[in-house]
Amino acid sequence: MLNLEQMKWWGWGGENIDFIISDKPELWSYIKKVVGIDGEPTYTPPIKFEDIELSLQILNEKFINQIKTIIDKERFTFDKKDRLIHSYGKSFRDLWRIRHGIVNASPDCIIYPLSEDEIAKVIKAAKEYDVVLIPFGAGSNIAGCLEANNGSGRMIASLDMKLMDKVISVDKISNTARIQAGALGPQMEKQLNSYGVTLGHFPDSFEYSTLGGWIATRSAGMQSDKYGKIEDMVLSLRMVTPEGTIVTRTVPKSSNGIDVNHICIGSEGTLGIITEAVMRIHKLPEERKPYGYLFPDFESGVKAVRECVEKYTAPVVTRLNDPGKTALSLAYRNKSSLLKSLLGNIVKWYLKSVKKFDFSKSCLMLTVFEGDKETFDKMKKKVNKIYKKHGAFNLGTGPGHAFEKGKYDFPYLRDFVMDRNIMADVSETSTVWSNLLPLYYLTFESIDKAIKKTVKTGFLGCHISHTYHTGASLYFTFGCQQIPGYEIEQYLYIKKAAEDAFMKGGATLSHHHAVGFEHMPWLKDDISETGIKAVKGLKVSLDPGNIMNPGKIIPPDGNEINWGLSKGDIEKFESGINAGG
Amino acid sequence: MLNLEQMKWWGWGGENIDFIISDKPELWSYIKKVVGIDGEPTYTPPIKFEDIELSLQILNEKFINQIKTIIDKERFTFDKKDRLIHSYGKSFRDLWRIRHGIVNASPDCIIYPLSEDEIAKVIKAAKEYDVVLIPFGAGSNIAGCLEANNGSGRMIASLDMKLMDKVISVDKISNTARIQAGALGPQMEKQLNSYGVTLGHFPDSFEYSTLGGWIATRSAGMQSDKYGKIEDMVLSLRMVTPEGTIVTRTVPKSSNGIDVNHICIGSEGTLGIITEAVMRIHKLPEERKPYGYLFPDFESGVKAVRECVEKYTAPVVTRLNDPGKTALSLAYRNKSSLLKSLLGNIVKWYLKSVKKFDFSKSCLMLTVFEGDKETFDKMKKKVNKIYKKHGAFNLGTGPGHAFEKGKYDFPYLRDFVMDRNIMADVSETSTVWSNLLPLYYLTFESIDKAIKKTVKTGFLGCHISHTYHTGASLYFTFGCQQIPGYEIEQYLYIKKAAEDAFMKGGATLSHHHAVGFEHMPWLKDDISETGIKAVKGLKVSLDPGNIMNPGKIIPPDGNEINWGLSKGDIEKFESGINAGG
Repeated sequence: MLNLEQMKWWGWGGENIDFIISDKPELWSYIKKVVGIDGEPTYTPPIKFEDIELSLQILNEKFINQIKTIIDKERFTFDKKDRLIHSYGKSFRDLWRIRHGIVNASPDCIIYPLSEDEIAKVIKAAKEYDVVLIPFGAGSNIAGCLEANNGSGRMIASLDMKLMDKVISVDKISNTARIQAGALGPQMEKQLNSYGVTLGHFPDSFEYSTLGGWIATRSAGMQSDKYGKIEDMVLSLRMVTPEGTIVTRTVPKSSNGIDVNHICIGSEGTLGIITEAVMRIHKLPEERKPYGYLFPDFESGVKAVRECVEKYTAPVVTRLNDPGKTALSLAYRNKSSLLKSLLGNIVKWYLKSVKKFDFSKSCLMLTVFEGDKETFDKMKKKVNKIYKKHGAFNLGTGPGHAFEKGKYDFPYLRDFVMDRNIMADVSETSTVWSNLLPLYYLTFESIDKAIKKTVKTGFLGCHISHTYHTGASLYFTFGCQQIPGYEIEQYLYIKKAAEDAFMKGGATLSHHHAVGFEHMPWLKDDISETGIKAVKGLKVSLDPGNIMNPGKIIPPDGNEINWGLSKGDIEKFESGINAGG
Repeated sequence: MLNLEQMKWWGWGGENIDFIISDKPELWSYIKKVVGIDGEPTYTPPIKFEDIELSLQILNEKFINQIKTIIDKERFTFDKKDRLIHSYGKSFRDLWRIRHGIVNASPDCIIYPLSEDEIAKVIKAAKEYDVVLIPFGAGSNIAGCLEANNGSGRMIASLDMKLMDKVISVDKISNTARIQAGALGPQMEKQLNSYGVTLGHFPDSFEYSTLGGWIATRSAGMQSDKYGKIEDMVLSLRMVTPEGTIVTRTVPKSSNGIDVNHICIGSEGTLGIITEAVMRIHKLPEERKPYGYLFPDFESGVKAVRECVEKYTAPVVTRLNDPGKTALSLAYRNKSSLLKSLLGNIVKWYLKSVKKFDFSKSCLMLTVFEGDKETFDKMKKKVNKIYKKHGAFNLGTGPGHAFEKGKYDFPYLRDFVMDRNIMADVSETSTVWSNLLPLYYLTFESIDKAIKKTVKTGFLGCHISHTYHTGASLYFTFGCQQIPGYEIEQYLYIKKAAEDAFMKGGATLSHHHAVGFEHMPWLKDDISETGIKAVKGLKVSLDPGNIMNPGKIIPPDGNEINWGLSKGDIEKFESGINAGG
């Protein structure tokens, strides 16, 4: 195996990274309280590596012999650990199954290409010998984009892009950089920073996701309010398909018919492999500081956020937590956290008695300003004025710094609670401003009801982290004790409640997490049956043999999606099977 | 015929609108000078309506009978004038042919639908009876998108969308408006303005183009630096195709696979009929003023424009003319023009003697600031500082107001010169900043050389009117005396020189004028052969019978495009056939 850093097969992050809860003294007791655990739950670590049995390895000798002429031995692997790592992404369903040794569809081999030329040859061989290819960046996808669940008996190869990780060139006059698709967030930013520039794309998965993955899934980073979503940053790209290579031209905008960049963006590996892209970049800001604010309630926070974008005054980060997410954030604080002292007794007294804050309703906002000195100062002043008008209390930079420090931590916490039989996951969407609060209430109620149909109580929170002139995202986090023997069904029942509410409420199945397999049941409602026909047309024209990541994006004909939650399961939950009673 | 305002069949604008040259005392003599005419050229008005013979009318009785059950009699027309109006767009080739009575492929009937339901029924009938449909907004397209040149013997119906012209609803909280696709610029803005909002989309064709046309061609308006290109404004849309209706959801952004909005945007009528869209809108600005500046040369103007976007300080309009375009603008001034007095003798003396301006190189910049009072003042101050640094002289609001007054006039001037056997047309593109001046020089030389291969001298100018963080547009205007008997070939020879230079110089075939038929020869170079395969995949899946605007966007198999310029023609021009010698 290559000496590459991969995420642990059983959870988030590198094998040597552990989640330290001991420096967050209130977190574990807070979680236990909200999910209704007295004492300590059973500790259930993942199955041992030795005890996992992978699916039977299918070996297509002709393909293998062909690949051996293209790819060096050490970049063409068949071993168990590599197969296991490339079996899944990191959705709750992925992790629960792998932790329990349920791995039904591992790739049969892993290929680590070094160049577009190698990729083209691999795809040619796969097409000739009918082998399935699944592109793999860093494996952080949570929509089921990576599972080889539709091979139809064919050999499956995972194409791990991590060796194609270079910033090829930077054009500081044009504010563009040509970057290989396998570049991981941190390595890419390090290379860009050495030129004094940044891409400005920092998704929660930043440490374990790649440029190619971001483009293939229409990702959004936490600084999207300034820098845009990934699709706004692509000037041109190259994508190798079984029917040839798509190459677009590096221009800011065009009117050359249907935008071919947008045929590749969001294609989730089903049409071909994105090998590189020319991206819009920005000079590193001179000044940058995160601030915390406390709003009396979610509604006033939403009003403030909307007024900022309406006035073309959106900070680079605006992250408004609802009361549930606020409570979790406060519980997350570590021993030395400034937040703690800021929310100390005097401030609390002041907010409660003088400002009439109801702490069960109050909401933490994290806001980052950046720019040259002048822009920074003006933006801060204007935003502070708007926030103040809507009742916000400025907590200073303490909570901001605490947020910046822990901003990539949530998936580690999920592993920690999964070790203790607690399910935790997310569902997110976007909608227009006039529908934001109605959708929030509707979805909140839908998820809350679903959790309580399965257990007595659970955690439910939401935050807004991407804002637009016309609307914003809503990002729900939920968790509860698992029902033994029904862990997946219980999870799907709650996940379905979220997605159903998004559809009923006029929103979209995901703002930035992709369709993959997990969100496929809602695709028809989202893009219409004729929209699906169009996407199928692309598939047939570029991948007639269906070798590229089959079973993703396009629902099977007749739309019978075997999602894993039967009518019987639903009925059981509706009728009140309940871990607590 | 319906009592609808249509453009004159022989030129630009309503039948009752004439181009008044008498109030621009220097214009005609300036034009004659640059195209090398002494005295007065032959006056060659368009052919008389009565003398035009349209192509044989194909009548598909079954289709006609079916349409009669769907569409009222007065909205389903067959008469000569209506057919003539719907025969072409307004490209030079379109206008020259129609003015000479060359109309080979008129639609056989015109249908004016009132609703999406009617459109769906019309498309169903067209599919059933194999009739070609060509969507028509206001007919201002200049890329050959509207000509029915690929009917293959089938009946052809033009679907005129102008009766579907309503702003259906405005959501001022979300900054969105739901608008029917047939809404013409002025009527749409009037409706929006009554709510205190604007779409912010003002293409040169504004008075004679529709929302549906803008979306179908990926149009850009002159205020795109603030408001974006049309594709940036679409939240959702509805498009009726022969295989069903695409319906997307009104959300600011999504990650629902390949962006189905972008499958419809830029489809140029080849997949279906866009019936309505929900668009991003903006509050009308409190303050708005246009200013003129004079830069010592094009290069310093480009530097100034780039520095503004680099510093996130782009005014709503930035229009930088090169020396050629500057001279035309100055010649365009009318009797009472402030520009004239501002560029009077004292100012001229100051610029020449003190500032060392070389008037043969100096460039006029038109800049519009808008926003609330604070934004307006700050933006103006910052931009003025940047302009000054690059040597600009502030001409005040006079030239700005003159520009605003005449900003939709150019196509009228083209009609005037065509009456006098002078060809005039445009080609535009976009590129990244580091390539902007190299591409400008390359294209300028290419067009200039081509003109001079056909005649002694001509007009050539360029302006920049759309800027981005990564680059800008380049918009070339050219004109010269026509060679009798070779008018179209001469035009195509010069047009080809522009497009060839765009491709050679790494740019795109068009920044905002569409592919249609006119730009098809460059499509393969622009989006790659595999990109064309993808677009074909969409066509096959949504319009398998090829009834929707055939012959546009997708080159014929084998890429033998009969564009109208033979190798023999090219050789003739290369060898120096020359009107003057």
